[in-house]
Amino acid sequence: MMVSLVILAAGQGSRMQSDLPKVLHPLGAAPLVVHAMRAGRALDPDRVVVVVGHGGDAVAQVVHAEDEAAIVVTQEAQLGTAHAVAQAGAALAGAPGDVVVLYGDTPFIRGETLDAMIAARKTHDVVVLGFEAADPGRYGRLVTTGDTLERIVEFKDATEAERAITLCNSGVICADRATLFDLIAQVGNDNAAGEYYLTDIVALATAKGLSAGVVTCPEAETLGINTRAELAQAEVSFQARARAEAVEDGAILVAPETVYFAQDTVVGRGAIVEQFVVFGPGVTVENGATIRAFSHLEGAHVSRGAVVGPYARLRPGAELSEDVRVGNFVEIKNAELGEGAKVNHLSYVGDATIGARANLGAGTVTCNYDGVFKHHTEIGEGAFIGSSTMLVAPVRVGAEAMTGSGSVITSDVPEGALALGRARQDTKPGLGKRLMDRLRAAKAAKMKG
Amino acid sequence: MMVSLVILAAGQGSRMQSDLPKVLHPLGAAPLVVHAMRAGRALDPDRVVVVVGHGGDAVAQVVHAEDEAAIVVTQEAQLGTAHAVAQAGAALAGAPGDVVVLYGDTPFIRGETLDAMIAARKTHDVVVLGFEAADPGRYGRLVTTGDTLERIVEFKDATEAERAITLCNSGVICADRATLFDLIAQVGNDNAAGEYYLTDIVALATAKGLSAGVVTCPEAETLGINTRAELAQAEVSFQARARAEAVEDGAILVAPETVYFAQDTVVGRGAIVEQFVVFGPGVTVENGATIRAFSHLEGAHVSRGAVVGPYARLRPGAELSEDVRVGNFVEIKNAELGEGAKVNHLSYVGDATIGARANLGAGTVTCNYDGVFKHHTEIGEGAFIGSSTMLVAPVRVGAEAMTGSGSVITSDVPEGALALGRARQDTKPGLGKRLMDRLRAAKAAKMKG
Amino acid sequence: MMVSLVILAAGQGSRMQSDLPKVLHPLGAAPLVVHAMRAGRALDPDRVVVVVGHGGDAVAQVVHAEDEAAIVVTQEAQLGTAHAVAQAGAALAGAPGDVVVLYGDTPFIRGETLDAMIAARKTHDVVVLGFEAADPGRYGRLVTTGDTLERIVEFKDATEAERAITLCNSGVICADRATLFDLIAQVGNDNAAGEYYLTDIVALATAKGLSAGVVTCPEAETLGINTRAELAQAEVSFQARARAEAVEDGAILVAPETVYFAQDTVVGRGAIVEQFVVFGPGVTVENGATIRAFSHLEGAHVSRGAVVGPYARLRPGAELSEDVRVGNFVEIKNAELGEGAKVNHLSYVGDATIGARANLGAGTVTCNYDGVFKHHTEIGEGAFIGSSTMLVAPVRVGAEAMTGSGSVITSDVPEGALALGRARQDTKPGLGKRLMDRLRAAKAAKMKG
Repeated sequence: MMVSLVILAAGQGSRMQSDLPKVLHPLGAAPLVVHAMRAGRALDPDRVVVVVGHGGDAVAQVVHAEDEAAIVVTQEAQLGTAHAVAQAGAALAGAPGDVVVLYGDTPFIRGETLDAMIAARKTHDVVVLGFEAADPGRYGRLVTTGDTLERIVEFKDATEAERAITLCNSGVICADRATLFDLIAQVGNDNAAGEYYLTDIVALATAKGLSAGVVTCPEAETLGINTRAELAQAEVSFQARARAEAVEDGAILVAPETVYFAQDTVVGRGAIVEQFVVFGPGVTVENGATIRAFSHLEGAHVSRGAVVGPYARLRPGAELSEDVRVGNFVEIKNAELGEGAKVNHLSYVGDATIGARANLGAGTVTCNYDGVFKHHTEIGEGAFIGSSTMLVAPVRVGAEAMTGSGSVITSDVPEGALALGRARQDTKPGLGKRLMDRLRAAKAAKMKG
Repeated sequence: MMVSLVILAAGQGSRMQSDLPKVLHPLGAAPLVVHAMRAGRALDPDRVVVVVGHGGDAVAQVVHAEDEAAIVVTQEAQLGTAHAVAQAGAALAGAPGDVVVLYGDTPFIRGETLDAMIAARKTHDVVVLGFEAADPGRYGRLVTTGDTLERIVEFKDATEAERAITLCNSGVICADRATLFDLIAQVGNDNAAGEYYLTDIVALATAKGLSAGVVTCPEAETLGINTRAELAQAEVSFQARARAEAVEDGAILVAPETVYFAQDTVVGRGAIVEQFVVFGPGVTVENGATIRAFSHLEGAHVSRGAVVGPYARLRPGAELSEDVRVGNFVEIKNAELGEGAKVNHLSYVGDATIGARANLGAGTVTCNYDGVFKHHTEIGEGAFIGSSTMLVAPVRVGAEAMTGSGSVITSDVPEGALALGRARQDTKPGLGKRLMDRLRAAKAAKMKG
Repeated sequence: MMVSLVILAAGQGSRMQSDLPKVLHPLGAAPLVVHAMRAGRALDPDRVVVVVGHGGDAVAQVVHAEDEAAIVVTQEAQLGTAHAVAQAGAALAGAPGDVVVLYGDTPFIRGETLDAMIAARKTHDVVVLGFEAADPGRYGRLVTTGDTLERIVEFKDATEAERAITLCNSGVICADRATLFDLIAQVGNDNAAGEYYLTDIVALATAKGLSAGVVTCPEAETLGINTRAELAQAEVSFQARARAEAVEDGAILVAPETVYFAQDTVVGRGAIVEQFVVFGPGVTVENGATIRAFSHLEGAHVSRGAVVGPYARLRPGAELSEDVRVGNFVEIKNAELGEGAKVNHLSYVGDATIGARANLGAGTVTCNYDGVFKHHTEIGEGAFIGSSTMLVAPVRVGAEAMTGSGSVITSDVPEGALALGRARQDTKPGLGKRLMDRLRAAKAAKMKG
């Protein structure tokens, strides 16, 4: 079954008390709208339409960074959910199959749940996602017979008996595209808020003799984010779930409660993660790698057998091959490290290619920035870079070459060569002590004077 | 209404099992007595008198560091709370208006509560702060009619009916100065401990026909610290409250449970604080600044748009202007960084002034210490400091000047100049490989031999 | 009473879903089997026999690293606990006194509990360790009269009345060596699993007229680790207990919930540990030392008055004398630092001896590795090492000597001398700005072109 997605992401989120559009607030280091997009990806959608409004340009940028092919349409005035979905009509013209409507501020829906909705479409024309609410409060109630949805009753219109129902409406809905837009066209705004509600299509559908069905999921999946407090609580839930899933998948977390995951973090079976580790977006740690304490990774790939940290920072583009070692107080950015390469102490490696088994001493710096441009450094296999070598890029050090400690390397070093760039040591007997004695005398005079 | 404060801070705190005077134990990185002083500051007090005893010199030093004008008086022998307050009599001679008595080991009293006590003085001669105790235990009970305090009954003297009272005495008290010291002069020590109790002034007041009143506050405010365990619990409470308040005030904390605040930390609305951040005393983070993970700040000011960390350490005197960037493994101490200046990697900047838009490369060090004296480094606007430049202070680098990577700068660099201090690179073909082969052969021989 | 230990450590632990032998999984940074060995050490055992099976070589290596004198015997086939103990028979031939049988996957048994078992041997021939189970489930039940053990009933053989018993069998057992092995020789394997159960010796003993007794301990002590989830829960318990014990012993933990201990961490009374500290194996912190935030210590000794961190990494062999200071972004490995020595910023000190009161500037590196061998650096008392000095080992800097910032020191520096190894500064007026202008023009051209 072909499926398209409509993701509603136009809300301002004034209750977030922030200038940032609501759907761009981060959860697990990914904007809320990206969570919805990734949930929908489980359906392998034909088209993805995101309806934006407040802060539309910023939202569009994030949406396209996640999925170049996504179509962004603008809802100029926020006239309700049915009106929002209607904005996607043109973009979906001619799309075969079903349309699923998701929400940019509802990040926890699982792909399995959406699969179940699509499956339920075999027996119903319109499928609504419901949940058993622990505290139904003012949610709309789903009046059902078996898995057939008789109607949705808004809380304010509900009888006592209907208010006793705990099966509530999540707002997520699925129908054949043509059916969906036909129904939406008939939705009116004759209500207190003067808005067009997507929910109304259920009554319209049953009135036409179409069948509506319900699929249910745990309440936690339908959690919408409307306030800072809800976002904070969602982050706590997200991290708890991410930690549990990582452990279930076979990762070894020494102190799971101190590890922070991003939405897309992948940690392989048998990988070890020590205390106090932060994963930003885009990190993959392979089976058998070790991330030691106090490490911070973003946009990095760590291969099997590699050991990172403690106190290592991997920035976007850090690509560590098997058995690489990145040690303490080391920053790696946009750099490939070949198999078994070592950067163990106090170094900055940026915009570089490091050959297999190369060893970079403490204090190595790739001087990649000239104040205007960034340049590349290349170090060959098995090269030995002495401590505090400055590699002034663009520069290449050949395989098996060596640089002396404290050298500034401005020209390429051929394979197997030794490059030195340092002054000869000059030792002046007794001068150290004389200088220090003089300073101490000056201090004594000062304190006295 | 003019108000003076008396803060009782003479106790040894033997139950703390520590050589440190009790009121110097830290809570939220500030000594307990400082919490009491800051609570009292809400009243804009005319005079502040701190009564010290055990470890008096150390306490006095802390008190004066917090408030130069505070008057420290010594209670030679610990003969009870009334005796302690009496020591403040001379220091308060002629002080107009009221006196509020606070305790150096009771850090959670809020300014609003003290305001309420002062307000209650309009209708009562003596005002006592009470609290509804969850478990009244052996606290003194407040027998009241409306907000009028009839008497205070010690637990051991209380009838069954009085023991059923849950409104208890915090010890915090307020009265007109002259009245307070008149009453204190009449307090006797005819009790088991032979001590002079401040509480007794209530009975003395009512006996004279004066009126006593009660103001109540939540029990949590009146929490006194007597043991290590209580201090630990107070720290947990303090941090929970500080995190909640920061979030309420609009700061964005990615993982509030991993952020540690000091008593005086200020984090502006819309400032972002990532995971694992420690604030020591004296930090202000402005609206729109970002403190990244694993950062440690003390005595620092971070302006709007600045980004700090991950792994940045700001020490006292770090003054970051707007849009400054301080990156990983960077330490800043007693240094001003102008607007947009960048110190992104592995650097130490101490005792320095860095101009706007200057860029300090990885491994930059201000060599500020000659073994005896500290010296200043000045870097002009838009200067470009090459990686691993040693700036041997005192030294100045002019605006738009540049230093070459690996240079040791000992003389001033004029505006717009380029300063280099490094040996020319000398490359010896094949020598690197030959040296390494020789070492490997030696190792092979060694393992064989 | 002479005592020997038998520790059963042959299990594969297939429920751990790991290639690592079960008893090598770490708890508090020590393998499970080491916890059992250390518990047994309270008895000052004459001989320690560890029975290994799966992954026997790896287990043997860990056992011998912990105790060179331990005897490792192999159980080729896993035929039950009695069979496992029988493998230790030869190794214990002629050993005087008692034998205590412990389990390599039961890490929480306390020495006091084992002492109580030995004491109970005065009145009983065989002593079994029991515990009151909160949820007895399928544990074997101990049928007792007073402290006399009548019999052990397996759950599946138990009557309703016996199943109501909550006193359960931990499996830990103690008896005179000769008695123990006599009884074991009589154990049969006529049961569903065809295994030889150690538990059966109790029935055999009483049948012979010997007396069996029970000693009880809290259930938490008898916790065995069989799954990842149990290991994770055990780690949480271990850390909670370690933190509480450290505080009880007088250490000052600013935020105990952020400190991770190893099994053998020793933190002295009055030592201060700040937030986010990880202790690996083999660390001792003396009374009055301070470990600042974000520090990571393994195999290190920190003396009184020393201050470490924030962001300090002490690796095995770091030996800090009194009043040493190791500051931020500093790594110390296999190095002794004399009294009052300072390494405050961004340094790597490995394989070195640093004299008292020596001061190492920011960016100091001991270049200890030539690509094949490791070499030693020695720095004398009161020496002053300028920032970014490369000490190319093997090398010695004498007492009161000095090195200039940015120097590469390849030859020994005599006492009191000044060694410099750097090029003279060359300053080219206007060139910095011209270079930068040229780069900017190039960029402008590029963006236009």
